[in-house]
Amino acid sequence: MSDLLQRLCRRLDYQFKNPALLTQALTHRSFGAQNNERLEFLGDGLINFVIGAELYDKQIRAEEGALSRLRASLVREETMALIGRELELGEVLHLGESELKSGGYRRDSILADALEAVIGAVFLDTGFDAARKVTLHVYAAFLSNLPDHETLKDAKTRLQEVLQAQSRALPVYEVLSESGPPHKREFVVRCSLSDAVETTQSAGPSRRIAQQRAAAMMLEKLSENAHA
Amino acid sequence: MSDLLQRLCRRLDYQFKNPALLTQALTHRSFGAQNNERLEFLGDGLINFVIGAELYDKQIRAEEGALSRLRASLVREETMALIGRELELGEVLHLGESELKSGGYRRDSILADALEAVIGAVFLDTGFDAARKVTLHVYAAFLSNLPDHETLKDAKTRLQEVLQAQSRALPVYEVLSESGPPHKREFVVRCSLSDAVETTQSAGPSRRIAQQRAAAMMLEKLSENAHA
Repeated sequence: MSDLLQRLCRRLDYQFKNPALLTQALTHRSFGAQNNERLEFLGDGLINFVIGAELYDKQIRAEEGALSRLRASLVREETMALIGRELELGEVLHLGESELKSGGYRRDSILADALEAVIGAVFLDTGFDAARKVTLHVYAAFLSNLPDHETLKDAKTRLQEVLQAQSRALPVYEVLSESGPPHKREFVVRCSLSDAVETTQSAGPSRRIAQQRAAAMMLEKLSENAHA
Repeated sequence: MSDLLQRLCRRLDYQFKNPALLTQALTHRSFGAQNNERLEFLGDGLINFVIGAELYDKQIRAEEGALSRLRASLVREETMALIGRELELGEVLHLGESELKSGGYRRDSILADALEAVIGAVFLDTGFDAARKVTLHVYAAFLSNLPDHETLKDAKTRLQEVLQAQSRALPVYEVLSESGPPHKREFVVRCSLSDAVETTQSAGPSRRIAQQRAAAMMLEKLSENAHA
């Protein structure tokens, strides 16, 4: 095993019995047929379950919705890519020529997939308990510093809750325009309150995203007014 | 423990050390605060991982996409509700008054959630290995009779693959109309092939669903033509 791989194993706090599994976990599909896609599938499910079970255990008062939002924030690509970067997975990835040239070793999706595959490889190498231990080890910083699950709610949900708490009517979202070619649509959405003159307006590549942005702007407006 | 609960445990091939966990798993939120929602969160992740790992193990030639589709078909609400019905979970559920009256014990979502919660309860009661064993036990019939993963592909994907295999151009989807109030939109979509006169047309509550339906109709048309 190379020095770089040995360093990775120290960072994972895990020694592979079968190092070929680790090599496969670090092989992107652009490199060849013996790649990490199936291991990624395995690791994805494992991380999802282990992180969920840990949150269940630690957040004894959190309801199901809060647990789901917390888990989603921890298992999303962005978070996994951060962990992949800390482990310096980019330096030990096997990438095909074109991915190498285009800087694939820096890409979030490739780093996140490799992290999942490495965890899947640990599971195959030794079993569930070892894979759980490695998962909790690489996630330690995130698990000890969880975000407030309220802030993880999407803007439309938060806006609705804020208005309901004040016994006000629900916001109305209207699509003002829809334009652009099929693969690059742009939606412009207006959010308005029936009991106030405030409106906000935002654009996005889908109706849903444009609505969320308009809701976020309305939330800000409401909080500015409250503090004015 | 009641006779009905004992029968359930025999069907699960599992005896609870702490029967209170089973009772909680069978308690719907309409019944009270001590309900099965958190256990459901736990069991959902466990089933997802265990079924995925089993497919990984058994389907050694399946690619990641095929594994994902197979898993999705096994962990969807409909399948879980079938298993819940075989276990006769409906007879041992604790439901609130209104759910009882409206026949909640027959509803897919409530049965599927209860199955997830029961598996979550086994995990808390004894640990991962026991919960895995119970999961594979209740899923045995489905796992020994897996659908062909090709048929699980959505219609747009299959249509694209059929056309690519014949070196033909990709289908074009157009929204012909969009109508109805916000909570009950209807989209009419046309699917056409640039190299043929055939078009199909379908409606649905979202653009995506209308497209899938139009693609399914086009697939049927192509297969009729091929057999004509």
